[in-house]
Amino acid sequence: MTHSPGDLAVLHSRVGAELLASAIPARFAYTTPDGPRVVPLWFHWTGTDVVFGVFPGSPKLRHVSTGTRVAVSIDSESFPHYGLQIRGSVTVTPTDGILPEYAAAAARMLGAARAAEFINGIAPPPAQVRVALHPEWARAMDMRG
Amino acid sequence: MTHSPGDLAVLHSRVGAELLASAIPARFAYTTPDGPRVVPLWFHWTGTDVVFGVFPGSPKLRHVSTGTRVAVSIDSESFPHYGLQIRGSVTVTPTDGILPEYAAAAARMLGAARAAEFINGIAPPPAQVRVALHPEWARAMDMRG
Repeated sequence: MTHSPGDLAVLHSRVGAELLASAIPARFAYTTPDGPRVVPLWFHWTGTDVVFGVFPGSPKLRHVSTGTRVAVSIDSESFPHYGLQIRGSVTVTPTDGILPEYAAAAARMLGAARAAEFINGIAPPPAQVRVALHPEWARAMDMRG
Repeated sequence: MTHSPGDLAVLHSRVGAELLASAIPARFAYTTPDGPRVVPLWFHWTGTDVVFGVFPGSPKLRHVSTGTRVAVSIDSESFPHYGLQIRGSVTVTPTDGILPEYAAAAARMLGAARAAEFINGIAPPPAQVRVALHPEWARAMDMRG
């Protein structure tokens, strides 16, 4: 098992790049006055930011705004485990539709044809909120040897 | 998709029971002065608590002690997604070896034979810390229809 200290270079390592391109949801942690929360979210890695298309009315928007620190884990379900943890602050931007990054995540999760059907089936079309996590700390681990 | 409000009854629902008995790691969120963190952890559901066998020296032990509020998500990697989120406070207890609950989690993750080999291979034997999350809030979702 490789445990590296926090190092943004892991985002471009083999395991980091593999997980950022994977069909594994990010588990997204944020803080509230009542304690932490964690939820699975589809994500898209732009090469510099981990971007989430958040639906309006989501509880997390009450607690996450520009400058809020959050954390994600993108990691394998099965043993031998491999994973990537990222921490940093977010930039939150209202939009008027489905984010291109959300559509890209859907294509990765579902395949292109099924994703198009899924995206077109979201009615009424939501004004998604763009939540972009800019990594300030990252760590990767890989038990595959 | 079923979205229920926080309701501990979901722990005993079909999807809740399925996930608590699954070979999916819990994604465990906790808070630090620098922001939230989230890591994958093997868990064992005792019927009342979600128990983690934490290795001594784990960074989370600097931030999680008896009474600390934490959150976990146990959810499917693939679409259609189903998942369980739990929040509550933990009880943290030092022990002098591998927790029985950790061994039970290993058996669920790896199968009995491979788990025995895995557990016996941990050298030197660690004095695990027992972290027991007592649910105070839970929600389940199931997109499988």
